[in-house]
Amino acid sequence: MTICSIATPTGGALGIIRISGPDAITIADNIFRSKNHTRLAERKPYTAAYGEIADAEGNVIDQVMCTVFRAPHSFTGEDAAEITCHGSAYIMQQIINLLIQHHARQANPGEFTQRAFLNGKIDLSQAEAVADLIASSDKATHHMAMSQLKGHFSSELAQLRSQLLEITSLLELELDFSDHEDLEFADRTELLQLANRIDTHITHLADTFEKGQALKNGIAVAIVGKTNVGKSTLLNKLLKEERAIVSSIHGTTRDIIEDQTEIEGLRFRFSDTAGLRHTTDEVEQIGIQLTHKKIQQAHIILWLIDTDATPQETEEIQQLTEGKHLIIAQNKADTLTPETQQQIENHLRNALPQAHYIRISAKTSHNIPQLQHLLRQIPDIPEINENDIIVNNARHYSALLSAHESLTRVIQSLAQNLSGDLIAEDLRQVLHHIAQITGGEITPQETLNNIFSHFCVGK
Amino acid sequence: MTICSIATPTGGALGIIRISGPDAITIADNIFRSKNHTRLAERKPYTAAYGEIADAEGNVIDQVMCTVFRAPHSFTGEDAAEITCHGSAYIMQQIINLLIQHHARQANPGEFTQRAFLNGKIDLSQAEAVADLIASSDKATHHMAMSQLKGHFSSELAQLRSQLLEITSLLELELDFSDHEDLEFADRTELLQLANRIDTHITHLADTFEKGQALKNGIAVAIVGKTNVGKSTLLNKLLKEERAIVSSIHGTTRDIIEDQTEIEGLRFRFSDTAGLRHTTDEVEQIGIQLTHKKIQQAHIILWLIDTDATPQETEEIQQLTEGKHLIIAQNKADTLTPETQQQIENHLRNALPQAHYIRISAKTSHNIPQLQHLLRQIPDIPEINENDIIVNNARHYSALLSAHESLTRVIQSLAQNLSGDLIAEDLRQVLHHIAQITGGEITPQETLNNIFSHFCVGK
Repeated sequence: MTICSIATPTGGALGIIRISGPDAITIADNIFRSKNHTRLAERKPYTAAYGEIADAEGNVIDQVMCTVFRAPHSFTGEDAAEITCHGSAYIMQQIINLLIQHHARQANPGEFTQRAFLNGKIDLSQAEAVADLIASSDKATHHMAMSQLKGHFSSELAQLRSQLLEITSLLELELDFSDHEDLEFADRTELLQLANRIDTHITHLADTFEKGQALKNGIAVAIVGKTNVGKSTLLNKLLKEERAIVSSIHGTTRDIIEDQTEIEGLRFRFSDTAGLRHTTDEVEQIGIQLTHKKIQQAHIILWLIDTDATPQETEEIQQLTEGKHLIIAQNKADTLTPETQQQIENHLRNALPQAHYIRISAKTSHNIPQLQHLLRQIPDIPEINENDIIVNNARHYSALLSAHESLTRVIQSLAQNLSGDLIAEDLRQVLHHIAQITGGEITPQETLNNIFSHFCVGK
Repeated sequence: MTICSIATPTGGALGIIRISGPDAITIADNIFRSKNHTRLAERKPYTAAYGEIADAEGNVIDQVMCTVFRAPHSFTGEDAAEITCHGSAYIMQQIINLLIQHHARQANPGEFTQRAFLNGKIDLSQAEAVADLIASSDKATHHMAMSQLKGHFSSELAQLRSQLLEITSLLELELDFSDHEDLEFADRTELLQLANRIDTHITHLADTFEKGQALKNGIAVAIVGKTNVGKSTLLNKLLKEERAIVSSIHGTTRDIIEDQTEIEGLRFRFSDTAGLRHTTDEVEQIGIQLTHKKIQQAHIILWLIDTDATPQETEEIQQLTEGKHLIIAQNKADTLTPETQQQIENHLRNALPQAHYIRISAKTSHNIPQLQHLLRQIPDIPEINENDIIVNNARHYSALLSAHESLTRVIQSLAQNLSGDLIAEDLRQVLHHIAQITGGEITPQETLNNIFSHFCVGK
């Protein structure tokens, strides 16, 4: 079946409509009249033709470019055509209507990429990388998606697979000759070493998941501090836009305001929380409970103080931030003398020696770049290279954990010198879990639906 | 200078980046590595190449298609390249950054179309049609833009111009032989007839402006009626979405809610107005004043009544709707007997005989299609054919009016049998005003800036 879809948001100068499937070129020929009167069917692949889209009555819908691709040399591996038209929502919908009249079907989300996978153009983890690439919003998420799309993860898995197959074949050989007791094809010690090496590798990949998640979702930073200390103003500075409502009424920020921004190639997710003061206002109390929850979830706590910090507040911070990275930022640096600020800092250093200290002014932007740099250093995440393999997909992570579990059983059995046929089943399980990631085995339709339904339409 | 721009909104599956200018292909070659290692400079025009965009360090930004065009066979008439990449805002910005590093300049809004005009690919009215086409949101605006883009208006103007030049040359011939009193090259009666025919044509074109404006901006319909009669519910039905807040508290609608929808190929602009009841609420009083203003601006008044209409309300409607098209819709048709409804209608017909009457239920959608059809018939606008010439651009309208003014002086002078050299100057003025529309004469930079600054970026 031939599918079609709008592949760009409407409302821009231009738009793209994709068609893919056995009748893609015939269907496109039905609605496209090239300027030089040649049919698309007669054109060479990878050539673009200028012409008009017209309906059955000959009304011209748009002047467009139409590019032709032929199986298997297209993204989907099928015959395909791409129409570049003007970006009017009306025009794009009219073209889709015409294509449907000529028996193309509106594509489901991700269906083009799903076809690319089913036609063997890319494996499943690369298909997932396409969605990640489209969603990438900074250097780190972009590099992770690009590495995966280029197949670095896939080839790593292929290597693991061939090593696992080596163990399997040696064990099978052992079984075949089990009546020749004097023959020893598989040195159990060597097999055990190999299995351990593979397990270390799998565990290492699985361990990158936490980092991958942090990179994908952003490093969580909770901005806390008593009311009116300048949290919202700081958040606006960090986000470079007027996101939080700034007012000088105590307790303005009742909902958690959360937003993301990129600092030196890394994504941060800031929560501007309700002030820590004690209040009788019920709504505000809910806000403060949310603040405590946000602190628990955060990777970094950014505690904002101004003229002083009461012993009560200091104690609260000590309790709330245990085991977290803590930055104590003295705000309103422009209103205090350096000596006073130093006194406040010295005082706090006794109670919170492990914290990072910085003096800023959210209002005048004083030391904001330095604060951003400090934030960037804390997660201890080096710049991501585009060849780095970082697992950031929960499906992959889960498959790696399952592979590790089965492999642990293999290792135990080898260590206990159990019979090869007992080990073989667990080995098959390891191979199965690894194959799930790239879709090397037949992937259940449900899994495919689940993966591709999260794609945007037109890809 | 070579320019570049993102030409699609970000956030879709795909995106387009355009490059145009003398170095377009060289610059694209600097950042694009085709899969088969051929340079874009060596490729035939109108061919698409698959490959990667990479930065100076070799980091791959995206896997893309790049299509090459060569002067003068491109939209702008210059060398050009189009990159189809993934729709991530991050990726698209990175590609633009790379192009700028290689000395392309970010394009101004409309700059590609402006170059197409300056390079003689299209005239000025066609350039304006490109912007209208992108903004077109229904059949009527689409047909008007397409007709103009295809040059129907331009060729009409060219015809007028050649007729005007005929008058000019005949008058000049008359002047050259003015000492031969017995020679009569230009029959004044014939010249006058020709001038009148041209003027009729120009006036006819100018007269389409009102219709063009109505089509472009939508036919204004004010929905009025006392509070709680179901105006917001009806608006939601007409707009096919939950736009207005519906509640049964009297006086809910204080602001004018206005939205557009297409009915049978024509755009309508509905205003849901505050109820007509008398109120002491200050905010609501302002709402009612706005209602009166909306009624004055509307082309059609849709007066909604329910169980009855008080004499006071009837009188108010009589006064407010004088000279307007009036539809009286009896809402809540499901709650009254046909006999009662007929009585109400008969009663109103005495006071408002010229109104259209219809019984609907906004809640159950009863007779809503019939109401839509009635609305579609009233403006007396037949379906727009894509070859129809309708002036909908204020700049063109103003030029046509100026041409008509000068031509009126020509006609007067001809009628008064004034000397040809006196008439010639006015004729030149007519030609000048006509030429302004298509930009046939040198167009002042200020006019161009004004036209193209309203374009979207990337076109």
